[in-house]
Amino acid sequence: MISVSIIGITGYTALELLRLLVQHPQFVVKSVTARSAVGMRLDEIYPQLRAVAYNETTPAVNPALIVTEEPARTDLAFVCLPHAAAAESVVKLVEQGSKVVDLSADFRLRDVKTYEKWYNHTHPAPALLETAVYGLCERYRDKIQGATLVANPGCHVTTSLLALLPAVQAGIIEPDIIIDTKTGVSGAGRTPKLTSLYAEVSEDVQAYSLAGHRHLPEITQELEAAATASGHETATGLRVTFIPHLIPMTRGLLATCYANLKQEMTAIPTNEDVYDLYKRYYTNEPFVHVVNQPPHTKWTYGTNHCFVYPIVDVRTKRFIVISCLDNLVKGASGQAIQNANRLYGLPESTGLASIGVNP
Amino acid sequence: MISVSIIGITGYTALELLRLLVQHPQFVVKSVTARSAVGMRLDEIYPQLRAVAYNETTPAVNPALIVTEEPARTDLAFVCLPHAAAAESVVKLVEQGSKVVDLSADFRLRDVKTYEKWYNHTHPAPALLETAVYGLCERYRDKIQGATLVANPGCHVTTSLLALLPAVQAGIIEPDIIIDTKTGVSGAGRTPKLTSLYAEVSEDVQAYSLAGHRHLPEITQELEAAATASGHETATGLRVTFIPHLIPMTRGLLATCYANLKQEMTAIPTNEDVYDLYKRYYTNEPFVHVVNQPPHTKWTYGTNHCFVYPIVDVRTKRFIVISCLDNLVKGASGQAIQNANRLYGLPESTGLASIGVNP
Amino acid sequence: MISVSIIGITGYTALELLRLLVQHPQFVVKSVTARSAVGMRLDEIYPQLRAVAYNETTPAVNPALIVTEEPARTDLAFVCLPHAAAAESVVKLVEQGSKVVDLSADFRLRDVKTYEKWYNHTHPAPALLETAVYGLCERYRDKIQGATLVANPGCHVTTSLLALLPAVQAGIIEPDIIIDTKTGVSGAGRTPKLTSLYAEVSEDVQAYSLAGHRHLPEITQELEAAATASGHETATGLRVTFIPHLIPMTRGLLATCYANLKQEMTAIPTNEDVYDLYKRYYTNEPFVHVVNQPPHTKWTYGTNHCFVYPIVDVRTKRFIVISCLDNLVKGASGQAIQNANRLYGLPESTGLASIGVNP
Amino acid sequence: MISVSIIGITGYTALELLRLLVQHPQFVVKSVTARSAVGMRLDEIYPQLRAVAYNETTPAVNPALIVTEEPARTDLAFVCLPHAAAAESVVKLVEQGSKVVDLSADFRLRDVKTYEKWYNHTHPAPALLETAVYGLCERYRDKIQGATLVANPGCHVTTSLLALLPAVQAGIIEPDIIIDTKTGVSGAGRTPKLTSLYAEVSEDVQAYSLAGHRHLPEITQELEAAATASGHETATGLRVTFIPHLIPMTRGLLATCYANLKQEMTAIPTNEDVYDLYKRYYTNEPFVHVVNQPPHTKWTYGTNHCFVYPIVDVRTKRFIVISCLDNLVKGASGQAIQNANRLYGLPESTGLASIGVNP
Repeated sequence: MISVSIIGITGYTALELLRLLVQHPQFVVKSVTARSAVGMRLDEIYPQLRAVAYNETTPAVNPALIVTEEPARTDLAFVCLPHAAAAESVVKLVEQGSKVVDLSADFRLRDVKTYEKWYNHTHPAPALLETAVYGLCERYRDKIQGATLVANPGCHVTTSLLALLPAVQAGIIEPDIIIDTKTGVSGAGRTPKLTSLYAEVSEDVQAYSLAGHRHLPEITQELEAAATASGHETATGLRVTFIPHLIPMTRGLLATCYANLKQEMTAIPTNEDVYDLYKRYYTNEPFVHVVNQPPHTKWTYGTNHCFVYPIVDVRTKRFIVISCLDNLVKGASGQAIQNANRLYGLPESTGLASIGVNP
Repeated sequence: MISVSIIGITGYTALELLRLLVQHPQFVVKSVTARSAVGMRLDEIYPQLRAVAYNETTPAVNPALIVTEEPARTDLAFVCLPHAAAAESVVKLVEQGSKVVDLSADFRLRDVKTYEKWYNHTHPAPALLETAVYGLCERYRDKIQGATLVANPGCHVTTSLLALLPAVQAGIIEPDIIIDTKTGVSGAGRTPKLTSLYAEVSEDVQAYSLAGHRHLPEITQELEAAATASGHETATGLRVTFIPHLIPMTRGLLATCYANLKQEMTAIPTNEDVYDLYKRYYTNEPFVHVVNQPPHTKWTYGTNHCFVYPIVDVRTKRFIVISCLDNLVKGASGQAIQNANRLYGLPESTGLASIGVNP
Repeated sequence: MISVSIIGITGYTALELLRLLVQHPQFVVKSVTARSAVGMRLDEIYPQLRAVAYNETTPAVNPALIVTEEPARTDLAFVCLPHAAAAESVVKLVEQGSKVVDLSADFRLRDVKTYEKWYNHTHPAPALLETAVYGLCERYRDKIQGATLVANPGCHVTTSLLALLPAVQAGIIEPDIIIDTKTGVSGAGRTPKLTSLYAEVSEDVQAYSLAGHRHLPEITQELEAAATASGHETATGLRVTFIPHLIPMTRGLLATCYANLKQEMTAIPTNEDVYDLYKRYYTNEPFVHVVNQPPHTKWTYGTNHCFVYPIVDVRTKRFIVISCLDNLVKGASGQAIQNANRLYGLPESTGLASIGVNP
Repeated sequence: MISVSIIGITGYTALELLRLLVQHPQFVVKSVTARSAVGMRLDEIYPQLRAVAYNETTPAVNPALIVTEEPARTDLAFVCLPHAAAAESVVKLVEQGSKVVDLSADFRLRDVKTYEKWYNHTHPAPALLETAVYGLCERYRDKIQGATLVANPGCHVTTSLLALLPAVQAGIIEPDIIIDTKTGVSGAGRTPKLTSLYAEVSEDVQAYSLAGHRHLPEITQELEAAATASGHETATGLRVTFIPHLIPMTRGLLATCYANLKQEMTAIPTNEDVYDLYKRYYTNEPFVHVVNQPPHTKWTYGTNHCFVYPIVDVRTKRFIVISCLDNLVKGASGQAIQNANRLYGLPESTGLASIGVNP
């Protein structure tokens, strides 16, 4: 068994880790931390955990576990803190010899200056950036196995990359991309704020972060890396516009991505062509499913699955690809467990085999 | 024109007053206060007010009005503060000669000791209690006209009283009553808290305040007064159980009330009998509508209307009555305007004629 | 491995069976039927099934399974048809030697006349009523093991019985009970109708079936049986009022139950007394959890768990108990699998170990 | 007073007309039709109408009005039928001398062939196309006054046009436009279907009509007309991609529109530049409000208002404009009344002065 800590237990990504780990056969949660909840039992914070059948045969999550301020020494730690605080915690965990999956943004951007520009503070641990691996198994699974520190991608980024990587790597689109995402409110976290209130969110949709969302440089970094690796880089780099929208639901994220087909293409590809391209790209992926109809976020509810639907708008010679996932699972905690499975050489889907809670 | 202040402009009941007053032909908002928003324009707090057609012919609400700390002297003031703070404000407003409709609980309970027991603090202005009139026009409209201070009833109380008053006054039920309410989350206010978050409220229902909700003594006070006035009081008083439930919606409150039919009745009344009793009771009421099918809260969405549906469960000899309304309108701000209309001798429905926003 | 049929695959309870069975280690779905979908693949009806990792080690649900009109011969069948149609199907299945868990109402009422009165048609298979076992493991698990036909209880009934059985069997309440339930709309099924539309259900609550819901005789039957078995029966039988309410959510059912404490009790029990009584009653139950705070339906989202919260209202000498569950799981398909596990002597929680999807 | 018929009373746009007309001082509903509801009273179909204060001083909507199969002869008719059926009805109404506002698509497209291609049937009344005026007051108010037949625009079209017209007419963008809309489910109508069920829509978002939504040719027709009229037409015409998304809410429509700034521009405009451009364009418009923050659909809830927010993404030299409205009001019935007001020379906002129901 592999012992696990969860750092920052009072947020939604930590709660989702607990929910998923309850059914994990190899990871055992031994330590949970949160300054604001020291001394509380897990099931006082999350009473639904009273339903956990905790015993010797299913020891993953003990509802009676007490929250502490500092983590115990464990094999693996999931860090669920806000950026900056996360990096400080990661430094300590790495020093004491834990492997770490960090769910914050602190180790996602390879370039310190880009990080400091978008997050408005000095990077707390630039030295660790070198060793951090970007935790998208679909791109970097070879590097993840054996790594010490995995930077778990952002939810908008995961959705966008899984949508666009095959097209970018195949070089079929111009480097001018629009990503329009629609997301549920759980991504805004468990800390009370006016804009997350039921009475504000219900019957409402709005765009946000129009001056630039922090997930944008992460999207650009990974798409440019993919273009370069495939020999499709352009002199000017990518021009990505990314506009997220908050919609009245708790979980789910759908990205609608638009790009012009490469002008020098002699023939416009058909829907079948791009479907086949995507199918080949994601062959054998346990969590990415290419479909031939518009996907629903609800198909992914509570699961680590992502559905991708690529098409060609012949009339405008535009490539459109839609992808969706559960922002708390494949967009956060499920992907973190997938990465942790990979770290330890377990099948990536260990503890993650479920289908969407529908209706 | 009658000049109006709104004290405590940053909450949902104040916002609802603004929305309703936009269409009022007699009241003109001249002053709005809130410590946390001093210096802001109304339409900075509530950008939807930029759509107000403000001019000489429709002067009710000026979106450019600036929030101040202290109210200007106006003919009328609506107090939208939490209890205790409300009473302190009411004292000043009354002293400076304004008529006041207080939306808080401070002047609803006639007995100071009951108030102090349920609200856990000393009453800030017991002397004013004598002059305060309970603002349920359907019961006290004669006293309201000409009053100085009107205590606007609570939302659960309004719903329950409109459901039960006819039966209690007719003496057809035993003094043993169960009130089970279902309410939207706007009643919990605009202050951010965990239990009001979209991600917590959606797909959830829970009972709350099981140790005793503060609306209970108010319900009991008014039902006992009605019973006494009708000569149907019992030696032991009423035994009322009141359990509210929070459900995933923004507006709306539905009360399902249960009581045994009076044992000494010689014949069990029919559905038609109780329907007729209620129809007679509410003849000519502009806002209370007796119906012969289960009412929907959505029928009342955004309006000051209340629907009441009384029936007899012959099998169990039980009387059941269901009523519903919009907790922010007839349960708060709409009723406040109805009371203000009454204060000034205007038709009670002035500025309140609309039907539910459906679907 | 045990081969399984699902009869009537196009409804929500069938979909929920599929979702849960994906993770079941012993049951393998071999046959699915539906007249309206003959010839379709399972993942054409439910595209989210494309995410199922179907192979030799996890063979439970094959997304490529083709819907047929008649079921294949399997060890076990789950019948997800409307009443009457269900009984006709059950007769055939039993004749061909399958064990059956029937999710309809056809074999829940022991008395044919009661059935025919409430369902308005002649019972299609009265002979089978004798052999049918009522599928509430918490009451009848000894009978279920070894049975041929299990009548899976209704969702309102399961919630109400788990709330009231301990009090009724302990004889602490008068035989005069009010059950007020709040339920999500998935219970109304997957067949399109006006009252199930998003635009009608959102921001609305209403009571329904006020003339008598079909779950009432089922509740009464089981509570009276429990009272009789405990020696607490009364000469006049139980007087149960049951009013369900539809609220704007997809899953979840919460029952608030009210009864007077038995008049002859010398001392009013405390909250601790009734909590202890319930804790003892449900010792070792894998799915019923007694709690000391108001439970949330969301705690049960997607799971087979039920939370029960009993209290005493000292002021009115009333006993109140609140229980909640997911109407599609413990209220339908999860309970069906629990019953099937029991039928085959498997641990009841096989394939059902998960905690609520929250937030 | 102007007498009014509503043809096709059982749908949501007809219900919304009734709700809005209740407060209209000049229009009196004299006739309502629907084959499926002949003989019913209005308040049997819509029980919330029992709250209407119908009398001599407010005669607009009589809840006791009886549905007929054929309309009475009235001054004005609102046609709320599906396309094709609408045109047949319009022909008769025009022949009998009524002015008509048609809420269907039948008279929106000026080119019969385009209509027949997108709607897959022969146009039932091509002769009337000549006389029909496109009912967007912000563009065609001079033509509307005095017209006989007004074609009320589609909801996606209204939102998109109000967002894009100023930029297209000013010639600041390339003729390559992406429109990504997010809409509530009421636009799908009151007829029961699986995809409109609460249990399907809640917690879900999906793109739809990817092969081409019928509002696309309408958007293109009007944008090209505006470009041409402004001397900014291009040889190749506009390349518009339009992808609508269904999100879990009842009302509201938000369009996010993307276009590259015109390449030959010497200086990239600032946010202030485009804000000023839009402000000037919509000066004195009663229902279109240019704002400097991302607008919320909820601001428009139940109202005829539209908020527009134009910005420049300097990094990508892209113009982005977001607009939103209530699809049932400015996107349908409110705009129909605005058009009817215009037809009769009344102020356009007659009966339409209200602000959004918030929260």
